[in-house]
Amino acid sequence: MIEYNRDAHDIYRQSFAIIRAEANLDRLPADLEALAVRVVHSCGMPDVLEDLIFSDGAGAAGRTALEGGAPILCDSRMVAEGITRARLPAENEVLCTLQDPRVPGLAKQLGNTRTAAALELWRPRLEGAIVVVGNAPTALFRLLEMLDAGAPRPALILGFPVGFVGAVESKEALAEDSRGVPFVTLRGRRGGSAMAAAAVNALGRDH
Amino acid sequence: MIEYNRDAHDIYRQSFAIIRAEANLDRLPADLEALAVRVVHSCGMPDVLEDLIFSDGAGAAGRTALEGGAPILCDSRMVAEGITRARLPAENEVLCTLQDPRVPGLAKQLGNTRTAAALELWRPRLEGAIVVVGNAPTALFRLLEMLDAGAPRPALILGFPVGFVGAVESKEALAEDSRGVPFVTLRGRRGGSAMAAAAVNALGRDH
Repeated sequence: MIEYNRDAHDIYRQSFAIIRAEANLDRLPADLEALAVRVVHSCGMPDVLEDLIFSDGAGAAGRTALEGGAPILCDSRMVAEGITRARLPAENEVLCTLQDPRVPGLAKQLGNTRTAAALELWRPRLEGAIVVVGNAPTALFRLLEMLDAGAPRPALILGFPVGFVGAVESKEALAEDSRGVPFVTLRGRRGGSAMAAAAVNALGRDH
Repeated sequence: MIEYNRDAHDIYRQSFAIIRAEANLDRLPADLEALAVRVVHSCGMPDVLEDLIFSDGAGAAGRTALEGGAPILCDSRMVAEGITRARLPAENEVLCTLQDPRVPGLAKQLGNTRTAAALELWRPRLEGAIVVVGNAPTALFRLLEMLDAGAPRPALILGFPVGFVGAVESKEALAEDSRGVPFVTLRGRRGGSAMAAAAVNALGRDH
């Protein structure tokens, strides 16, 4: 037998205690504390919080929207898969339209990536939704373009695209002008589906 | 219109070029170069490669197994979701047993987490499989225990659990003694489902 902690509840408890001891949560508003802890938990890097930027009241806006039954619109299936359904307060719908058969045609028509084109299919659900980008910078850029063109406004944008081409720029564009929509994002190249899903889970309920 | 790259193929090309320019691939064997590039791509951090450790021939072992039809056993659904089916050379099965209704009972019986208990259901498929741990340290610890107790040997272990309790230790245990099984792992707290899925995708085929 190898010696290790086998108690899921205790592993969570210890993990969160280590994060609270190591991470600098002081500069964060109370309504984003749980989100910060869970984002760190998902990636193993307390210093990621130095890059966390947000609008005032973003956490509260997300919680209110979820409690009101807002759908959660995800840019990738990994994000959708990472959202813990039992934490959602109103059996909120978790939607990823990337695999819709219309998407390749839309991408061609728009001259954009499939991930960006998949946002077209969000339009009927966009008003008051939680939008979660955990993969593609083009999805976040496209969302801003849609808002500029008068698309319905979501309740919250969680912007965590990752990578080397467009991730930095798309998150800067969001933070500079979120088109009046509450937001949380992570400056720099880091991000990804696990952090994005963790951010959603943090806005849900504890048991 | 916002100015950004909308061409998925070109975004990949540029991303991989940036990674090759910034990351230190020199110390890596040729059969792990693609894996290294894709792991960096999934997390946005070239320095992660300093923590990549592996057994000789691990990449080749993984490729041979996949081409021979090996199943891919994943500790979490996010990992399974991140594996690009079109890259798999033999329509390899991608399996995650975590949601099986027998798992809560097994967890109680074993006195372990559900993620670790789910490995019991891998046994009939474990021989020659690709094992991918992208979430839970307890899954990696449990795998080592099962191997110590004589379980069938997989072809490759991709060990990328993440976090603050057990992640460091489980990956050290794998690297110190992988029970004769080829492995790739990432020292330290970093890891996660995106890196784990990227490692699998790198062992598949390009188009």
